[in-house]
Amino acid sequence: MAADIAEQPAGYARLLSTGHTAAIARVAAAVAQRRPRHVVFTARGTSDHAALYGAYLTEIRLGLPAGLASPSAVTVYGARPDLSDALVVGVSQSGGSPDLTEVLRTAREAGALTLAVTNDPGSPLARTAELGVDIAAGHERAVAATKTYTAELLALLLLVEGIRAGDGVLPTDQRAALERLPELAERTLADPTPTQLAPRYRFAGQLVTTGRGYAYPTAREAALKLMETSYLPALAFSGADLLHGPLAMTDPDVPVLAVVGSGPGGRSMGEVLPRLGERRADVVVVGSAEVEGATRMAVPEVDERYAPLLDILPLQRLALALALARGEDPDAPRGLKKVTATM
Amino acid sequence: MAADIAEQPAGYARLLSTGHTAAIARVAAAVAQRRPRHVVFTARGTSDHAALYGAYLTEIRLGLPAGLASPSAVTVYGARPDLSDALVVGVSQSGGSPDLTEVLRTAREAGALTLAVTNDPGSPLARTAELGVDIAAGHERAVAATKTYTAELLALLLLVEGIRAGDGVLPTDQRAALERLPELAERTLADPTPTQLAPRYRFAGQLVTTGRGYAYPTAREAALKLMETSYLPALAFSGADLLHGPLAMTDPDVPVLAVVGSGPGGRSMGEVLPRLGERRADVVVVGSAEVEGATRMAVPEVDERYAPLLDILPLQRLALALALARGEDPDAPRGLKKVTATM
Repeated sequence: MAADIAEQPAGYARLLSTGHTAAIARVAAAVAQRRPRHVVFTARGTSDHAALYGAYLTEIRLGLPAGLASPSAVTVYGARPDLSDALVVGVSQSGGSPDLTEVLRTAREAGALTLAVTNDPGSPLARTAELGVDIAAGHERAVAATKTYTAELLALLLLVEGIRAGDGVLPTDQRAALERLPELAERTLADPTPTQLAPRYRFAGQLVTTGRGYAYPTAREAALKLMETSYLPALAFSGADLLHGPLAMTDPDVPVLAVVGSGPGGRSMGEVLPRLGERRADVVVVGSAEVEGATRMAVPEVDERYAPLLDILPLQRLALALALARGEDPDAPRGLKKVTATM
Repeated sequence: MAADIAEQPAGYARLLSTGHTAAIARVAAAVAQRRPRHVVFTARGTSDHAALYGAYLTEIRLGLPAGLASPSAVTVYGARPDLSDALVVGVSQSGGSPDLTEVLRTAREAGALTLAVTNDPGSPLARTAELGVDIAAGHERAVAATKTYTAELLALLLLVEGIRAGDGVLPTDQRAALERLPELAERTLADPTPTQLAPRYRFAGQLVTTGRGYAYPTAREAALKLMETSYLPALAFSGADLLHGPLAMTDPDVPVLAVVGSGPGGRSMGEVLPRLGERRADVVVVGSAEVEGATRMAVPEVDERYAPLLDILPLQRLALALALARGEDPDAPRGLKKVTATM
């Protein structure tokens, strides 16, 4: 898991290299030409969080409605929604989930434009979809996904921005901003804070993660990593939903990890943090925003829509360090398999 | 909270009475006439779970793609997705959330057909939407929503089935099946099992809820009720997602509440329950399916798409009884307000 985490800056550089960006640009141009009216994502587990990021990007950057489809409507109940105006995107590291493949197969039959985002261009999911994006993350050794998650994020970002450009080719200044990411990721990973913070949660019985907008998928993915590796029940809430009910749970015994960046999503957490403060919750902040008096895992400032590529890094390292501190083996989580076959 | 829970059978009967069904039928006919190409739901907290049920119904019964929109894309990032082919449905007990109202306002400006499902026809949300459905649940005394949740479910069911019928008028046999619900709800609430089971969780540190398809919103809502009233961290997973990672967390110390009905969604849990059994999880089953050897909160058998109106009842009662057993006051949860204003 440590090796997978450390490979992420190199993974960003690889996906940003000419061959891969050109391949994604061709797919983006093909999508732009077909002018879908809305986008449906389908994914499970970690990839579901990458899909959620893709849905935010789609709504905000493309002005197209986007949603996450539940595979069970199709695979369990035989729903056959009319998808003739839709782009349906399956996101899966292995490309081996039978239910996602079935969703893409029926979507393609129903006239949708279908696209697979996977780490295996020869997988059933990739072979079923009309278009494919290879996240090119290489073999992932650990069961808990890390480098394939961020590769999915970056591939979806390049895809959406390429569709926005129309011909798949990103503006020069945007390319320049993206090309800084490998070095910024390297710098983020060099920060010792996550490892130093792990003992804080040695005896925690539960944990809450929160974020808004682009930071919400990060909060969800951080919670899943903590559950998978440290068996710590971790509840992820959007900053807004947290105020609706789960806030009752946060007290000085419940640690909160809040993802707070410098953009609009981070600023909108401004109404959430004081409420957590009133309840004397134990808050640690992750991200580029300076939050007065808060313990913080700092991350370099970038445009908020690139921040998910950096913000998750200290959280992955925290999950790894905490698993070790709790005497668990993050490379062999109990009861987990790499590919899960559900229908 | 106990009084609100007990009122649900009467609430079903009220919503099924001629005046209310006729009003919903008129709205359904208006929607059917406009032929939306896809449906976007927006909601928060408990109402988000009703919206999720509405999304399943829409995909399965109407063959229309349906998704849940994140208000923050609109309210935080200023996204203005092209919704000219969409029906946008806001679901909110109070109809007072500024962010949902903003989503409906911008959707209406963007050409969407907009619909508010609320308990207050005079609320900002209802006044912003072109069409409105009154869930007619009466004043809810407790902060934790119970009778307004099930009223939202029933209103959405009547609406979707009415759109399917085209003129809003349900077939006679379906009406007959629905008219049995108040009596079946009464019978479900008379079962002493939930109260008897509460001591089992007196010292639980966490809990997992799970279900698939129509039962997944029930699992999500049960988890929220347990968190709101008993401050018990409760993690809800679709049966399929549970196998993808969180399964690692389930061991003999983690209680699992599994919603298992007699229809396709319940049958598809057949692959999940044995995996929980292998891990010797403490499983209690809720629903109409007989599961060999399992402790069970039994619910009368109905068509699976009506089951969410019954399955949640013992889970609400369990949350109430558990809060009392843990010395908490379910009528005054810490840190919660009835209407939450987020933007």
